[in-house]
Amino acid sequence: MEKLEQYQFSKRFDGVPLIGSAFAGEHPGLIPLAFGFPYPNSFSIDGLAEAAVKALKSEGTEALQYSGGPGQKKILEWIRERSKLRSIQVDTDQIMVTSGSNQGIDLVARTLTDPGDSVWVEAPVYFGALRAFYLAQNELTAFPVDEAGLRVDLIEEALIEASEGKRPMPKFIYVLPNYHNPAGISLSVERRKKLAELAYTYNFYIIEDDAYVELNFDGEFLPSIYSFGPERVIYMSTFSKIVAPGIRMAWIISDPEVLNRIKIVKTEGLTSVLMQEVVSCFLEKVDFAEHLKPLVAGYRMRRDAMVQAINDFFGDEVSFEKPEGGFFLWLTFPEKIDTTRLLHDAVEAGVSFVDGKSFYLDGKPTNNLRLAFSFCDEAQIREAIQTLAKVYQKQKRSVC
Amino acid sequence: MEKLEQYQFSKRFDGVPLIGSAFAGEHPGLIPLAFGFPYPNSFSIDGLAEAAVKALKSEGTEALQYSGGPGQKKILEWIRERSKLRSIQVDTDQIMVTSGSNQGIDLVARTLTDPGDSVWVEAPVYFGALRAFYLAQNELTAFPVDEAGLRVDLIEEALIEASEGKRPMPKFIYVLPNYHNPAGISLSVERRKKLAELAYTYNFYIIEDDAYVELNFDGEFLPSIYSFGPERVIYMSTFSKIVAPGIRMAWIISDPEVLNRIKIVKTEGLTSVLMQEVVSCFLEKVDFAEHLKPLVAGYRMRRDAMVQAINDFFGDEVSFEKPEGGFFLWLTFPEKIDTTRLLHDAVEAGVSFVDGKSFYLDGKPTNNLRLAFSFCDEAQIREAIQTLAKVYQKQKRSVC
Repeated sequence: MEKLEQYQFSKRFDGVPLIGSAFAGEHPGLIPLAFGFPYPNSFSIDGLAEAAVKALKSEGTEALQYSGGPGQKKILEWIRERSKLRSIQVDTDQIMVTSGSNQGIDLVARTLTDPGDSVWVEAPVYFGALRAFYLAQNELTAFPVDEAGLRVDLIEEALIEASEGKRPMPKFIYVLPNYHNPAGISLSVERRKKLAELAYTYNFYIIEDDAYVELNFDGEFLPSIYSFGPERVIYMSTFSKIVAPGIRMAWIISDPEVLNRIKIVKTEGLTSVLMQEVVSCFLEKVDFAEHLKPLVAGYRMRRDAMVQAINDFFGDEVSFEKPEGGFFLWLTFPEKIDTTRLLHDAVEAGVSFVDGKSFYLDGKPTNNLRLAFSFCDEAQIREAIQTLAKVYQKQKRSVC
Repeated sequence: MEKLEQYQFSKRFDGVPLIGSAFAGEHPGLIPLAFGFPYPNSFSIDGLAEAAVKALKSEGTEALQYSGGPGQKKILEWIRERSKLRSIQVDTDQIMVTSGSNQGIDLVARTLTDPGDSVWVEAPVYFGALRAFYLAQNELTAFPVDEAGLRVDLIEEALIEASEGKRPMPKFIYVLPNYHNPAGISLSVERRKKLAELAYTYNFYIIEDDAYVELNFDGEFLPSIYSFGPERVIYMSTFSKIVAPGIRMAWIISDPEVLNRIKIVKTEGLTSVLMQEVVSCFLEKVDFAEHLKPLVAGYRMRRDAMVQAINDFFGDEVSFEKPEGGFFLWLTFPEKIDTTRLLHDAVEAGVSFVDGKSFYLDGKPTNNLRLAFSFCDEAQIREAIQTLAKVYQKQKRSVC
């Protein structure tokens, strides 16, 4: 064979890091506050085993075939019913199961945009979504959040500028309204309504990523953005946080015109019909409200442990909004602190987290970081926060 | 809300049919020779149920989590071992599980190409692959097959022209070497070797789609194209034909440089780790050679029934290469016959198939069609071919 020449891969990789980020290589000995993993005993292993047997024995011939089978219909029906709690009224032909929410985000980006199209995101923003938008070769602009979520007033100003030709109009805006990843806050009802109105006025879509909605610590639910603008909002949620991530099942709700296009982009066809049947059988068997109770309690307990430990070991030196649900707490340090440097020291000391700059577009050092309280037990969380405080004190002495 | 304006979706949909093709809407009463579905009792339902319970009870906590778990390692090891039979020697870091082969084709197209890039395919070519290439906005050129597969001599001529600047050089060539879908033929060893050499000389990739390799009716295996050019061949195969399509599991083998990029494009992360664990447990339990025997026998029997029926009801009026494996038989009629017209009449008479033009780029009427012998039983196959012969005789009288 001749000597190989260099091959020119797709340009979509320009600017996307090839081998994950610095925090991806988890050391086995660390207390992991980096990733939003459900805690280990949150999984209903026996219930899923029973459901798997039922799915195979009663519907195996259909569920193992290329398409169809009743599992698909049952799961769509479950999603349709459950969505009413989010003020979402849809038919099952407006729902599609995806292999996790990240796949959904990727499919929607490719449905709505071409390379070079403008997409607006929050700052900070979930890095998994960013990766999909980079791969879709979107031009990204980020708008800040405050304690009531995305600054929709700034979005409106920018849209007015866009309508005057001073900047490109976005094809869509990606928003995570409940228990924001990473910021832990929720978007106010007024802003949800306003954002939906803007989508109609300026003719863009909103991707509403509602991954954490069921993990609500105070029981109050806000209406979805979708409920204020069903023709310009694409709603997503997931079974990863309420059944298990390893089943790889999430869903998209949108109007049928968009959904038909998304289905075309999803070239693999339906997400595993067998897995859909298994999850259907599982959900048929459990009282879902009862199933959720210990899960929510488990996450609330971990959130409380983390808040307590931060108060105990940091006092007034850091600030954060107490998350009312979800997996994450977003911690802000004094301005001179660089959390990427802090991460390096923390890993040495036995704790991992995600540094703030991973959630921004500009890649500059930041003084905030994301802590996941979802995975570790209370003792680990307390130990990790104590270690983090020590590492912080050390950096503080060197920069202040 | 204001009146909605028209929204401009991605340009990738231009030229892709929005609502499938004419043959997609399967009438319930038809004898279906259209799609390559495994026959219903080919599935090991009890074995999979047992495997599901074992996977959940023994590895549930890891298999239900976001990543990792031993299932992933076990399935890669199984694929690595089995690939040796295809003359493929690789490490497990050169293997990735995908949600079916169509997803793999889509991922590879997006890894290797940008919109407007040139991609070469066979004529006829599997329409699922075509859809992925249209969505990737590739410029497609098709080269004919004969009884020994793709006309690699014509490929070489075209590559020489491309090297002289007379036409674009392909970024990759998509080839289905064993029991071709739809043509039923296999690529000769000489052509496999030559094609791999051309990939090195002219610096393009080959996608080797080996979906049907295990369903081999005479027991002779040809070495893969991959074995002749591992640095420029991306090999794919699937569990859809040997376990079940509903599990949605296939795999890609390539050099690590390409695979790392494919992993980035696969934004959803690993294909269901739980399903990987279930399939691992299933494969651990069965003697795979014994598992295959009845499957291969079942497909051979159906192939024989179809060949017999064609000989009995058509005599010398049609021609075909007898498939030595796989799911499909490619039938060629006298030149004046238009199989799209034939399809219309056949559906009326109770039989479905896929008309020839669905497998070509130009969309012109053709005198060939694809019959799947994989799904129906022998009596249904015989009845369907008899019906088809009647429909053909009717058209023949009207055109000849």
